[in-house]
Amino acid sequence: MDIGDFVKLELENTTYSGTVMPSLNEDTVVIKMKSGYNVGIDKKKIKNIEILESGDKPKYGLPPLNLEKNPKLKNISILSTGGTVASRVDYKTGAVHPAFTADDLIRAVPELMDVANIKGKVILNILSENMLPKYWVMTADAIKEEIENGAEGIVIAHGTDTMHYTASALSFMVNSEVPIILVGAQRSSDRPSSDAALNIIAAVKAATEPIKGVYVLMHGETGDTVCHLHEGTKVRKLHSSRRDAFKSVNETPIAEVNPFTKKVTYLREVKSQDRSKIKEVVLNTNLEEKVALIKVYPGIDSEILKFYVDNGYKGIILEGTGLGHTPETFFEGIDYANENNVLVAMTTQTINGRVNMNVYSNGRELQAKGVIPCEDMLSEVAFVKLMHLLGNYEFKEAKELMSKNIAGEINESINLEC
Amino acid sequence: MDIGDFVKLELENTTYSGTVMPSLNEDTVVIKMKSGYNVGIDKKKIKNIEILESGDKPKYGLPPLNLEKNPKLKNISILSTGGTVASRVDYKTGAVHPAFTADDLIRAVPELMDVANIKGKVILNILSENMLPKYWVMTADAIKEEIENGAEGIVIAHGTDTMHYTASALSFMVNSEVPIILVGAQRSSDRPSSDAALNIIAAVKAATEPIKGVYVLMHGETGDTVCHLHEGTKVRKLHSSRRDAFKSVNETPIAEVNPFTKKVTYLREVKSQDRSKIKEVVLNTNLEEKVALIKVYPGIDSEILKFYVDNGYKGIILEGTGLGHTPETFFEGIDYANENNVLVAMTTQTINGRVNMNVYSNGRELQAKGVIPCEDMLSEVAFVKLMHLLGNYEFKEAKELMSKNIAGEINESINLEC
Repeated sequence: MDIGDFVKLELENTTYSGTVMPSLNEDTVVIKMKSGYNVGIDKKKIKNIEILESGDKPKYGLPPLNLEKNPKLKNISILSTGGTVASRVDYKTGAVHPAFTADDLIRAVPELMDVANIKGKVILNILSENMLPKYWVMTADAIKEEIENGAEGIVIAHGTDTMHYTASALSFMVNSEVPIILVGAQRSSDRPSSDAALNIIAAVKAATEPIKGVYVLMHGETGDTVCHLHEGTKVRKLHSSRRDAFKSVNETPIAEVNPFTKKVTYLREVKSQDRSKIKEVVLNTNLEEKVALIKVYPGIDSEILKFYVDNGYKGIILEGTGLGHTPETFFEGIDYANENNVLVAMTTQTINGRVNMNVYSNGRELQAKGVIPCEDMLSEVAFVKLMHLLGNYEFKEAKELMSKNIAGEINESINLEC
Repeated sequence: MDIGDFVKLELENTTYSGTVMPSLNEDTVVIKMKSGYNVGIDKKKIKNIEILESGDKPKYGLPPLNLEKNPKLKNISILSTGGTVASRVDYKTGAVHPAFTADDLIRAVPELMDVANIKGKVILNILSENMLPKYWVMTADAIKEEIENGAEGIVIAHGTDTMHYTASALSFMVNSEVPIILVGAQRSSDRPSSDAALNIIAAVKAATEPIKGVYVLMHGETGDTVCHLHEGTKVRKLHSSRRDAFKSVNETPIAEVNPFTKKVTYLREVKSQDRSKIKEVVLNTNLEEKVALIKVYPGIDSEILKFYVDNGYKGIILEGTGLGHTPETFFEGIDYANENNVLVAMTTQTINGRVNMNVYSNGRELQAKGVIPCEDMLSEVAFVKLMHLLGNYEFKEAKELMSKNIAGEINESINLEC
């Protein structure tokens, strides 16, 4: 019995069928069942082992599944950009290089067959820490192509490091009536605790919903219980390793998605889709790449800001302290940016809560120097939005739009209990 | 009846005594009672008003309280650096400039008399966004002086924007057997929801405990229920406006402090004090100020890092993505920093969780380039620690100490449920 084999294990009172996974404990066999769920079985309790299908088969030797489309199910395209979530499929097919055809996906997560008609496509294969603005554009282009070719929902498999930056970029760049769901995994498939399969199932389910917009789907709790669907401009990675690392900030998630029952429970109002325009996609992928995100700290020197101005930067997001402040030591640099028509906008490093630059003198002075408050917008979203605005509008208009809601990134009031 | 007057208000069935506070609603009188708690009273329900003491009296005209020390209580020094928490006292005395004598404090929060023998001292009067490393040194010097003069506990009133940076700096700079408690307020005293009085009461209480080390004390919940005592190197401001904005990260708080019952409930082990050395203080206030904190983002340019190296910076904290990564676009800058003996260390912008640069190739490559993983250390703490290390040690030793625990900033394992 080797890793990758599809086996039937007989125990005293029960039988398990599934694919043998790597196990961290040599006394235990880990089986991934068809449900996508893993079970660890004490080797001593196994009475009989039957190898139903060997995992040794070369990938390209697997016969095509020749699945016919189920007319009752929606057509969902899964686009892979790489990352931990995509590595699962690699593992299952035994391929070192990415493999993300519909057949690979169905073999890895057979349950997808019951949720949608699946199409798979690799558009990139990078670790998400290496995502670049040009790849956001490439992803937007791929989404447009899929939708125009009949996709009724899009799932983007993505590494988690920068998934929220990409979700934000797509929120500003893609206008369509189709749900676009980014999905990742915090644990790779060679670990019994992998969240990849359940997240993909829930993401595909979410992509079949009659909603539009860009969302992130990940585990909602550390356990395998429920997944959360987050608005693409209101979500952030808030833990380096936990499976529920992604959290909506200043907002509740959009919905809970149960990957077992496939039930979707909406937690707040959602943008519903206009089916009559389902194939219409308008992209705006212009980006000004000379934008920076600067976190301020005690004693930060004005020379730092001058460096950006002198090097052709057009916009700066300052991640300030508290309600949106910087040390006075930074004022000279801000004046210099303002004199040189560099757009400076303010978020807060408290992550949660809203910028309010009217409460203290520091905030009022900064506004007098031309700094724009970003309200309850996340720093990462503000960074992407400023690239988008400066890529499409003149300075004055970009400045006005920075503090106005475009894609769900600013709410007039925030739920203080979030 | 004017703001600042001490009054007795008779209602149908009850009587309230306290100081008249500004009210946001003209139909309501807000009274700050001696307990430090505010009550809003419908003007229509007031049957009789008696002005017991006019608030118009000039500050310097108030007679001294001539309080005698209670030998059963500890001697606590409250040092004010400014900020919202100190503005309360300003308001109460009618002074525009800071006033923070023991008498002012006792008049504002009479309950303190029952908790400790209070001494008050103004050492700075700045908004905490303007805190500078040299003010951290000034504060450390003031702490030493107070302890050598008999203070058995220290409370530092501080603005909240950068209170966690200061707590971290004092954690590395001050070695003593006395508890040092930083305290702030999220709402100023002219708002009925002010948390200033309760936080000060709980902070003074914590300063009387037989513990040592540097802590932050703030509301533990949005309501006036319980305060949390946080370890100075494990705490961060995580909301711009909520009263429970400060949270321990990757750890539980040290203790709950009930400002009403004065009960202190420890939630984990704490450093206990050696009473025999209570007057001994060793300071190490050397700081290398040429240290920067850089948050990385998709597409961040190596030229940015080169700017710091070329401008004499000696250390850089990178707030990376996920488990501690940067885009490959930044590698050239990191090589340049390494070649020029600039110490580069890595934290994570996920805030929660631990850096682990052994999991993905990106992290391993960064380590090969000399980047030091900061484990479960907060970015703000790592920034201060690097200033401290480079101010006291040679490059090689500083590099080794960066990933080792000195003042509670690194734990070997973290509670994943935090």
